[in-house]
Amino acid sequence: MNASSALLTDLYQLTMLDAYRQSGMTSPAVFELFVRRLPRKRGYLLAAGLQQALEYLESLRFSPAELDWLARSRHFDRPFVDWLADLRFTGDVWALREGEVFFANEPILRVEAPLPQAQFVESRLINIIHFQTLIASKAARVVTAAGGRTLVDFGMRRAHGAEAALWAARASYVAGFDGSATVEAGRRFDLPIFGTMAHSFVQAHDSESRAFLDFARARPEGLVLLIDTYEVEAAVRKVIELAPVLESEGIRVRALRLDSGDLVAGSRLIRRLLDGAGRQEIGIFLSGNLDEYKVAAACAGGAPASGFGVGTRLDVSADAPSLDIAYKLQAYAGRPRRKRSPGKATWPGVKQVFREIGPDGRISRDTIGRDTESLSGHRLLEPVMSAGRRVTDAPTLDQIRAHAVDRLASLPEQCRSLDQPLPVTAAISDGLRRLAEEADAAVAP
Amino acid sequence: MNASSALLTDLYQLTMLDAYRQSGMTSPAVFELFVRRLPRKRGYLLAAGLQQALEYLESLRFSPAELDWLARSRHFDRPFVDWLADLRFTGDVWALREGEVFFANEPILRVEAPLPQAQFVESRLINIIHFQTLIASKAARVVTAAGGRTLVDFGMRRAHGAEAALWAARASYVAGFDGSATVEAGRRFDLPIFGTMAHSFVQAHDSESRAFLDFARARPEGLVLLIDTYEVEAAVRKVIELAPVLESEGIRVRALRLDSGDLVAGSRLIRRLLDGAGRQEIGIFLSGNLDEYKVAAACAGGAPASGFGVGTRLDVSADAPSLDIAYKLQAYAGRPRRKRSPGKATWPGVKQVFREIGPDGRISRDTIGRDTESLSGHRLLEPVMSAGRRVTDAPTLDQIRAHAVDRLASLPEQCRSLDQPLPVTAAISDGLRRLAEEADAAVAP
Repeated sequence: MNASSALLTDLYQLTMLDAYRQSGMTSPAVFELFVRRLPRKRGYLLAAGLQQALEYLESLRFSPAELDWLARSRHFDRPFVDWLADLRFTGDVWALREGEVFFANEPILRVEAPLPQAQFVESRLINIIHFQTLIASKAARVVTAAGGRTLVDFGMRRAHGAEAALWAARASYVAGFDGSATVEAGRRFDLPIFGTMAHSFVQAHDSESRAFLDFARARPEGLVLLIDTYEVEAAVRKVIELAPVLESEGIRVRALRLDSGDLVAGSRLIRRLLDGAGRQEIGIFLSGNLDEYKVAAACAGGAPASGFGVGTRLDVSADAPSLDIAYKLQAYAGRPRRKRSPGKATWPGVKQVFREIGPDGRISRDTIGRDTESLSGHRLLEPVMSAGRRVTDAPTLDQIRAHAVDRLASLPEQCRSLDQPLPVTAAISDGLRRLAEEADAAVAP
Repeated sequence: MNASSALLTDLYQLTMLDAYRQSGMTSPAVFELFVRRLPRKRGYLLAAGLQQALEYLESLRFSPAELDWLARSRHFDRPFVDWLADLRFTGDVWALREGEVFFANEPILRVEAPLPQAQFVESRLINIIHFQTLIASKAARVVTAAGGRTLVDFGMRRAHGAEAALWAARASYVAGFDGSATVEAGRRFDLPIFGTMAHSFVQAHDSESRAFLDFARARPEGLVLLIDTYEVEAAVRKVIELAPVLESEGIRVRALRLDSGDLVAGSRLIRRLLDGAGRQEIGIFLSGNLDEYKVAAACAGGAPASGFGVGTRLDVSADAPSLDIAYKLQAYAGRPRRKRSPGKATWPGVKQVFREIGPDGRISRDTIGRDTESLSGHRLLEPVMSAGRRVTDAPTLDQIRAHAVDRLASLPEQCRSLDQPLPVTAAISDGLRRLAEEADAAVAP
């Protein structure tokens, strides 16, 4: 599949572009991307996906095959298809840096471009930013729950397709995970990859001990053995018996993985057995339908875990599988605009988020104001693209991850609660309130 | 992005392959794909994604760039990387036809291949089948709720990445949707695409009437106008005023779209205004965070809707964003295997689903048995691939969709309830129970 297809959009974008072209509406437009409200149990969101969004904008163009298909589809006439052949993104973009924290109604990306361009990119821009922000925000909660223990993304198989699997690996790494099991994510994003063994490996062997030995000899580095295919206690005893044999071959068992049952009781049993045999150096790695709630419960219950594999519930953000994210026209031809649909009204005009940091280094106040206002605090939206080209080199993934660690530390404590978080509510500047009144008055009845 | 990358897998698959290669374990293995239990509020599942799964198996190979990266990654040595260069899928596959309904524990796909091949394909096979089955099953519920009204997938922007958006369009079409807004899905899968207009189009114009006129003249065919950017009643009155003007130009308004507020009250108001003006021919299309529950409520509340656009909650399967799907080793070298992990134990051996249909055309009984047994009912798993090649031509998407309509009609009524569905529980044959006892006894302690 070719995810960079320009046809990866909603039909109405093309329909509207055709109308704009026919009526000559190509003046500059400003659109902003923001989340209307946070899901339940989210005290903040972590911005992610900007790199992929900018790559999309820089590379946007219709291929000859796509144009041919459009012409043959009979949805559009030839003059429009010819006009699409020249469509490029030549606008300016401002955005929060990847790894920044943000809250409801705060614009996290602003596009200023000729109306057809700024309109067209809506569907895929949302698609890119939405998913990575969703997963980074979920993963950051798991990081909080794990209290410094190793965390690996195990979610590829039940992520929603290939791109979701790859981007979930990237977004969770940004949020502080140690890496992913997804090999292609390691190649594409240069992030650490981890792997253990599956139950099928044990089942394929005539005995569990034979499976452990074969695996250890084939994979002597960083050896992790899965011990719940049959009976956990028996499996641990087999590992203890095999350990001296393996040591004589220079092979060290690094950890045992438990993937089912009561993880607290199970890991305590394993720890007791290992310690009783003088095997304090062997760690315990837990997995099996984990999320931030289960990781927190395991830690609170005293599970002696050195790390966790977190899969499906992370990669689909199970308790909140989407964000109420929108990309809305805020100004056209220099005049502010807004929609007033019930429950979906927006603040008009070109905006900025002004963030004040208290003496403790934590966020003390966010204000959404007009970009032309001078309010206290620093501006979160920074220029990232000018005339369709990036204004700075792309940061490395590790730089983004370090920035996220830093910004997550700036969260007020009540934002980070797993069960009853209290997000920051951004204030609205007086200037912005006045502008909204003016914009409403300017719309012809 | 190149979703067909062979590296789109979990690291442990490669690790296990290396171990199998080193110990020469390349005898035939049988793996089966099945869902352990249905999510709450699912009375059945609808199989989808087989075409993409078979394409994956047929085209599986490591590219030189992937092999180079693997060699440089230092996770594996050169002999293994060279061995991977020759890896192809040469096995046999049996599967349910796409569009078949199924229940917990029923194998829906069976792979028989040399152990390394059958093992390796696990991650991506699950990734492909899981998502489309998830969405087709959700979409079928929306189709039930809509009672024959037009249904269009609007979910691309908040689907989890590009592949999810495209496959959600395909899977919902299989389940009975009329089409999707996603243009690339139309090109790739030859399914109908639909589009209306966005609020930004209205906002960009100085007046709503001007926006309607511009749009109508640019898009005279199948015209749908969005009427909730500002005040719904005022917008409908503008459409009624404009209708004669447009008619004199040969343009007919097909429908009005309402995307916010109380959809029942709003659509009734619109209908009253339209009917009062003699505009009975103009339909009403509803959208805005819809799912099967809201569609059913709108219909039950008497909303005079001709159709619905269903987006985010469909494309992420919001109330059940994943299935407990697994791909497990059932036999190796001719001997049955199973895992016995608490809560995750499986039935061993090569299995088949035998389905009995009652005189009313509905499913009366499903039995999971050994493939070698002769039980009453027809066999759901059919051969689809032999020695790595498909045994029949791929059905068209419309053939798959027609099959799904037919199979959905075979569901017992209690399976189709939206709120309190009662799924079929497959019986386990006596032969299979005996085999499980034998398999357990055969595992060395």
